[in-house]
Amino acid sequence: MPIAPPPRRHAYLHGYDPREADRLRDQAGPLASLLHGRLGYAPGERVLEVGCGVGAQTVALLRAHPGIALTAIDIAADSLARADEAVRSAGLGPVEFRVADATDPPFAPASFDHVFVCFVLEHLPDPDRALATFARLLRPGGSLTAIEGDHGSALFHPENAAARRLIRCQIDLQRSLGGDAEIGRRLRPLLVAAGLASVAVEPRIVYADGSRPDLQRRFARDTFGAMIAGLRGRAIDAGLVGADEFDDGLAGLARSAEPDGTFFYAFFRATGIRPS
Amino acid sequence: MPIAPPPRRHAYLHGYDPREADRLRDQAGPLASLLHGRLGYAPGERVLEVGCGVGAQTVALLRAHPGIALTAIDIAADSLARADEAVRSAGLGPVEFRVADATDPPFAPASFDHVFVCFVLEHLPDPDRALATFARLLRPGGSLTAIEGDHGSALFHPENAAARRLIRCQIDLQRSLGGDAEIGRRLRPLLVAAGLASVAVEPRIVYADGSRPDLQRRFARDTFGAMIAGLRGRAIDAGLVGADEFDDGLAGLARSAEPDGTFFYAFFRATGIRPS
Repeated sequence: MPIAPPPRRHAYLHGYDPREADRLRDQAGPLASLLHGRLGYAPGERVLEVGCGVGAQTVALLRAHPGIALTAIDIAADSLARADEAVRSAGLGPVEFRVADATDPPFAPASFDHVFVCFVLEHLPDPDRALATFARLLRPGGSLTAIEGDHGSALFHPENAAARRLIRCQIDLQRSLGGDAEIGRRLRPLLVAAGLASVAVEPRIVYADGSRPDLQRRFARDTFGAMIAGLRGRAIDAGLVGADEFDDGLAGLARSAEPDGTFFYAFFRATGIRPS
Repeated sequence: MPIAPPPRRHAYLHGYDPREADRLRDQAGPLASLLHGRLGYAPGERVLEVGCGVGAQTVALLRAHPGIALTAIDIAADSLARADEAVRSAGLGPVEFRVADATDPPFAPASFDHVFVCFVLEHLPDPDRALATFARLLRPGGSLTAIEGDHGSALFHPENAAARRLIRCQIDLQRSLGGDAEIGRRLRPLLVAAGLASVAVEPRIVYADGSRPDLQRRFARDTFGAMIAGLRGRAIDAGLVGADEFDDGLAGLARSAEPDGTFFYAFFRATGIRPS
């Protein structure tokens, strides 16, 4: 359950709308095995999830690694309450949920065997420092895993200039908040700079075409398309794009989920070890 | 050995320079298992390779599938002579080499069990029609495999605007010759439109970072970087880019092969079956 004092909020690009929570759950479903497979957390090991949000990855982590001693922190108490509910209704847990700032986690050094951080670094103004902080929470020999997308990797067919501009718009908005929507490609140098050893990065690809209409619908439309759609008001208010142009771009993205369309996106999963 | 009349030449963006042949061989080495793995051609099966060039893929095909009855065509007799030499010096073969236009191959319908076409469709003004032509060469139940890159997928760290412009330059040059350097993402609709069934596409990813300096060197620098470098004269002559800007872009690409750099590229492998 959420405890601890309410910390200051970072700007979270995607906001806290209930539709956003649905999107995060839609995203976690088809992606769970792609992103969580073979992390190798053993029963009883102490795992910290940083920035668990509404628990989309928390549930997947627990399913993939039964019996781990999971602590999950997030800056938003409302999100933690939903994460707690999601874990309970999936018949999983227990999880120790704590309200805490990802950049200042309230734990002693070497408190954990593993740290897991997914779709969080992209929103932090100083991911280098955050990673060094997380690394200190690991026992020597413990592992840190970071998973991030890279919006520069998004390919779609038919190509569509308006859709391309929307993705650029998202990247620019995120940058204006201090984040980096193209962080996936630079996870390795970030983890190395944080003092982690044996850093290995694997790209994890989502490719959807007419042979997998379910994946087209769930990823191209309900995950990536929905994420872009969620920025409509903010992008228009910021003067980055007009309303008609925005809707043209969304239609262009949706076109990639038609039977003759294709959609491609790369996530990057990086793991490093705290040296002894 | 090359026989048959010299057909008209299509424009081949990368030209026929000996350094280009080196690049194609450098490319084939680290990519062979990535691109050719698990095609499943059985000994004795009749396989046609369309557009074999200097034999970079021909050698890899023969290594991966011993005993196949391979016929390889290309429009350039010089290239075929080099392909023949490459196959012999690898102790492989025999291969029936024939000078022929990829868009008008001199074979009766249903002459082959499999057709293999790699890095060729991207150069053809009408890949739809070419694929329909290849499909007719298959026996019912036979397979067609097409492999292409997609230059829109190239990611590198550090990001570099001049390098990004060079890639755009290559895409524009190729388009001006009737080709499409971003064809990978649309292989599935192309194969479906050619009447092939059970079309399945797999992205095949090259990701190189400081943990694999050999791959950084061989792919980011000696394959992708060398391909871009080979367009220098043509791009400058066409007024697409200035000499200094070109060299800045090349330096930016080379930067991605440094220890703290990263490089990412997606190939797409599509296979379809000729319906009975």
